[in-house]
Amino acid sequence: MPPQSVLAFLETHARRFVDELCDYARIPSVSAQSQHKPDLVRCADWIASRARRAGLDVTVFPTRTNPIVVARTPRTDRRKPTFLVYGHYDVQPPEPLDLWTSPPFEPRIQGRNVFARGISDNKGQHLAHLNAVEAWLQSGEELPCNLTFLIEGEEEVGSGALQEFLPRHRGELACQGVVVSDNGIPSLKHPALTYGLRGVAALEVRVDGPSRDLHSGVYGGTVDNPAMVLCQILARLRDPRGRIAIPGYYDDVAPLSAYERRQLAKLPFDAGKYRRFLGVPKLSGEAGFTPEEQRTSRPTLEINGLTSGYQGEGSKTIIPAWASAKITLRLVPNQQPRKAITAVKRQLQKLCPPTVRLTVKHGHGGEPYLVAPDGALAQAALRALQAGFGHEALLAREGGSIPIVSAFKKHLRADTLLLGMALPDDNPHSPNEKFSLDAYARGMRMSAHLWPELAGAA
Amino acid sequence: MPPQSVLAFLETHARRFVDELCDYARIPSVSAQSQHKPDLVRCADWIASRARRAGLDVTVFPTRTNPIVVARTPRTDRRKPTFLVYGHYDVQPPEPLDLWTSPPFEPRIQGRNVFARGISDNKGQHLAHLNAVEAWLQSGEELPCNLTFLIEGEEEVGSGALQEFLPRHRGELACQGVVVSDNGIPSLKHPALTYGLRGVAALEVRVDGPSRDLHSGVYGGTVDNPAMVLCQILARLRDPRGRIAIPGYYDDVAPLSAYERRQLAKLPFDAGKYRRFLGVPKLSGEAGFTPEEQRTSRPTLEINGLTSGYQGEGSKTIIPAWASAKITLRLVPNQQPRKAITAVKRQLQKLCPPTVRLTVKHGHGGEPYLVAPDGALAQAALRALQAGFGHEALLAREGGSIPIVSAFKKHLRADTLLLGMALPDDNPHSPNEKFSLDAYARGMRMSAHLWPELAGAA
Repeated sequence: MPPQSVLAFLETHARRFVDELCDYARIPSVSAQSQHKPDLVRCADWIASRARRAGLDVTVFPTRTNPIVVARTPRTDRRKPTFLVYGHYDVQPPEPLDLWTSPPFEPRIQGRNVFARGISDNKGQHLAHLNAVEAWLQSGEELPCNLTFLIEGEEEVGSGALQEFLPRHRGELACQGVVVSDNGIPSLKHPALTYGLRGVAALEVRVDGPSRDLHSGVYGGTVDNPAMVLCQILARLRDPRGRIAIPGYYDDVAPLSAYERRQLAKLPFDAGKYRRFLGVPKLSGEAGFTPEEQRTSRPTLEINGLTSGYQGEGSKTIIPAWASAKITLRLVPNQQPRKAITAVKRQLQKLCPPTVRLTVKHGHGGEPYLVAPDGALAQAALRALQAGFGHEALLAREGGSIPIVSAFKKHLRADTLLLGMALPDDNPHSPNEKFSLDAYARGMRMSAHLWPELAGAA
Repeated sequence: MPPQSVLAFLETHARRFVDELCDYARIPSVSAQSQHKPDLVRCADWIASRARRAGLDVTVFPTRTNPIVVARTPRTDRRKPTFLVYGHYDVQPPEPLDLWTSPPFEPRIQGRNVFARGISDNKGQHLAHLNAVEAWLQSGEELPCNLTFLIEGEEEVGSGALQEFLPRHRGELACQGVVVSDNGIPSLKHPALTYGLRGVAALEVRVDGPSRDLHSGVYGGTVDNPAMVLCQILARLRDPRGRIAIPGYYDDVAPLSAYERRQLAKLPFDAGKYRRFLGVPKLSGEAGFTPEEQRTSRPTLEINGLTSGYQGEGSKTIIPAWASAKITLRLVPNQQPRKAITAVKRQLQKLCPPTVRLTVKHGHGGEPYLVAPDGALAQAALRALQAGFGHEALLAREGGSIPIVSAFKKHLRADTLLLGMALPDDNPHSPNEKFSLDAYARGMRMSAHLWPELAGAA
């Protein structure tokens, strides 16, 4: 529980925080577009001065690309735990511009929302943390932990500079935990800690048959069709119950605990609305699991692309020389990308008939991620969420991956708490991106609560 | 058996026939290339005068494209049967020129072969018939039948003009049978009558899932993957024994008689050589049939192309919105394209899960073709082949289709006897096309024997 003066500071300065959020969002820090290079530098400087005014010690590190801003609470106390807050000041391109109701870099307040590119992803979210820390520092209260803000400028284009920066500065960035608010929650009434992410592994399968496309009339019936073989092999990778039909594939899959399933079931979900949003005639997934469990906590094998033979207009009567498929696996704790790929590859080879040649190429891989949801840090985060948002805090998992989380684990050996403030209709990466001023205010209050909670748990 | 004088005429004029073959092949009558338009007219005129000199009554019909030459034996005798000989004076483009050993329109004799574009496909083959008919007419013998030569100039580009010409001239072209020598035989020692062709039917299957490509991390696990569904549906169209797994699909398939199987087994076939030529690790086909039977007398279902999702470099983590496949069926007597497509469509719909939408588009269709191999005309043709080539004549079937054969059946209600003279190494449509002077000479002798045989059988 933070001192009353900290919470009072947030109330008193609420108006200024909104003004500053708009100032920040006014800078068109589009990392994908080279004409915005000066804007990125200006944006890094803006957040650096903002952090200095909050009372932090700030260094702006130039990189080969965009600057990285590191801001620390002054007078590091080695007896206290240290936490790192990550954010990014770069934003997605605003195009297509004609779909915006108001210009993307002229923040427009309507009701309790502010519309602007990058306001939710991610300017508003890390600014909320900065405001909360300012409240602690400026109200003269002693923070129970040391804090380091790490704010980069190229998350939307792959975090290249940060991936190099982390191992080189691992000493200065050492911490007991990382806080990332760069994701979402189901609603203001359903604040949530995202404690798990799926990993990913990519591969490409190719089936080679005859040495060239063959006339299907002259030769058809005597040679196997590589496209048919590919279909028959791939078809057997999924069983009728929606499970991946590969021996040993589920061996490393951590089962959901009763506690987790109970928690995940509390997340609001409307199957009809979800189905209509995706545009499918019927939802489909592994039997025995809810859609929320299926999309976040169970492994998948997806065909991302198919290529074979003639794809133009009309028909061409050939037996194609080859056929290929792009496949990605979504992995869950505790699956390993390498091991999963090996299992898939072995099964593909086993299923392949001797009438064709099979090749499997490996692509990129990313590990799944899990913070023990009943661990001390996660439980501390849940208490802060509840205090900040005024509603029971839920546990959530995400189906995709957030690569920087794995980088923190690898280089800093620190777990990440994903404490999103974005709402499902915030339109990140889309026209009319917005941020809820209520989420902003509650996010600040959550952050004010977070530091004593985390310090007590560390 | 033709009179001795006819056969003697062929011997006496053998040298001239070779010279004339070379003259004919010197005209670059490439129907696909507009700059050769005058050459096509010149070529039609050449074969018209050649037919006149042979003693035929000739009309050159102009068309919107290339002329059609019709040449008839004089003084049509209505008491005798009439046969039609089909040929085409146009040739394939000669490109790529650098792969020719000698210029494509400068015929080069080497050993018992003449190299030139179009010499085998089809100038040499219909000229052999014309020479044989000249031998009958000029040696003063009475042909036991009326004959009509129908020689078109755009077979290599789809026979458009002829397809219009046939129904308009069906009265003048009426006949008891058509002779087409525009195909091949296994070797000079294995002359053969091709008595069956496969038909074809094309369709396109499309599986639609979500309304747009979806992020495979965020949504994967809750919606069906259209590419996987397509694979699973297509995979089930073929059973492990290489049969098409569609209810009722084989109902109309005429079984091979013991006689046919015995005859087809006489065709020379070297499995190892065939496999190496196609470049496959192992041959594959419907269990219980020889490769020759599989590729000519059994239906197939081939995937000609697959399209779905991301096909570029690297990977893209999506669930594709849709997936599609191009399919062609090869049909055998007595399958009907429309009925086969309906059966496939019904099965596709039956196999499609409710999680996606399925669409099937019909493409072109062509009927299979069969002349009763033990019928009078076929047996007469076999005797002529044997007499002409000096070896037992075999029965063969082709796996592809020859569209003009169906047109003759449709418009003239006449069966076609396919009496090819080309050899497997004649390179039709390829560089260094050639024609065997032995095949030419034996083809003439076969043709000289053919008319009394056919007249006797009609």
